[in-house]
Amino acid sequence: MPESTHSATQSFSHSTQPRFAIIVAGGTGTRMGADRPKQFLELLGEPVLLHTLRRFADPAVEVQQCVVVLPADQFETWQQLCADFAVTIPHAVVAGGESRWASVRNGLAFLASEQAGIVAVHDGVRPLVSAEVINTTYTAAAEHGAAIAAVPVKDSVRGLAQQGSYALDRSRLRLVQTPQCFELTLLRRAYQLPELPTFTDDASVVEDLHPIRMVPGDYRNLKITTPEDLIVAEALLRAR
Amino acid sequence: MPESTHSATQSFSHSTQPRFAIIVAGGTGTRMGADRPKQFLELLGEPVLLHTLRRFADPAVEVQQCVVVLPADQFETWQQLCADFAVTIPHAVVAGGESRWASVRNGLAFLASEQAGIVAVHDGVRPLVSAEVINTTYTAAAEHGAAIAAVPVKDSVRGLAQQGSYALDRSRLRLVQTPQCFELTLLRRAYQLPELPTFTDDASVVEDLHPIRMVPGDYRNLKITTPEDLIVAEALLRAR
Repeated sequence: MPESTHSATQSFSHSTQPRFAIIVAGGTGTRMGADRPKQFLELLGEPVLLHTLRRFADPAVEVQQCVVVLPADQFETWQQLCADFAVTIPHAVVAGGESRWASVRNGLAFLASEQAGIVAVHDGVRPLVSAEVINTTYTAAAEHGAAIAAVPVKDSVRGLAQQGSYALDRSRLRLVQTPQCFELTLLRRAYQLPELPTFTDDASVVEDLHPIRMVPGDYRNLKITTPEDLIVAEALLRAR
Repeated sequence: MPESTHSATQSFSHSTQPRFAIIVAGGTGTRMGADRPKQFLELLGEPVLLHTLRRFADPAVEVQQCVVVLPADQFETWQQLCADFAVTIPHAVVAGGESRWASVRNGLAFLASEQAGIVAVHDGVRPLVSAEVINTTYTAAAEHGAAIAAVPVKDSVRGLAQQGSYALDRSRLRLVQTPQCFELTLLRRAYQLPELPTFTDDASVVEDLHPIRMVPGDYRNLKITTPEDLIVAEALLRAR
């Protein structure tokens, strides 16, 4: 086969690869000091996780299958919320594991029958992600195998030393967000390796197998972690 | 002198050391895409810089002298704003230099007649700093010579590599805020050394002379840098 034809075929297959999304919501609510897990806190009257699910159900991002990973003891709450808010977005619900790593692995197992495609892993508590960031990350992963959304660091960064601290060159650093998108087969291979304590996200799970491409995230794509984040997220949603 | 007396004296002198503040506002507004420098943008109806000045004029933080460093061509605007908003907070206004470093140096020169004390350097566009963070930083600097407010990193952090990127251990990293507080004589010595391109804040100016202590900052103490920061800052101010 001549090289040019091969390239054309490859490029065609990239653009038509099916897209999957694993939305991971493992929070138990303890860090927020709230009465419920942070994925169920209300943001402009709707649960955080529902906002997030809507982002991936947006026709503009063309996701074929959404898998929501939740602690098994929260299934009933989520089911009730889906009824209360009349949620019609098709999605699978899979039980989480002991760690974020185990939860993503469970979500991935749900996609076991899929042969190829690009899978996004996304934090259930990042409800402000834009269609643009989602699309950019999927597209870059189709081209490079692994791509994650990240933003430059606005503040100076210091490392902790034995005595005091030392400055780092922030221009060489990025704050990592989600989505993190991977070829399905690559992410599957990475999740066959044992869990390491250094895994903080999927890029760290994959990076020994494949270089991680970073694409522009969005400062508004915040992770609901502390109480003030809810206030901030509501303000940003209102301003859209 | 017995050691115990010496300690007592030292501790007494720490708590009564005069406090100074240099508030640096060098913005020209170009990054915000706004019609004026970000320090003059309105936050709940008042200029950002006025909010910041109020924080250091709060009786709870006992600052003896505030020095505001501004580009010389913004003096008139600031004077007009102070008239419009009937500002009665005593403060000096000093012309900024070509860089943040040069601006702080100019602010410091204004305090040339002071023999001792603790000086805070604070970003003019961090209007949400709390009295608690200011006090904690001054107190730690009185004890350790140099102390800066910083917060743990919520997101995963990656470094840029020749090919792709690599994970860093975020538990060993801190995002640096202001205030950054120093013994006046120490900061003066540091600013007698030549400017380096690696200076991103005052901790980096001082660190070759003295270890930098990090104290807990506050996630709400954000720096107004991008347009969404104004929305976020207003929401956080309203929620107080």
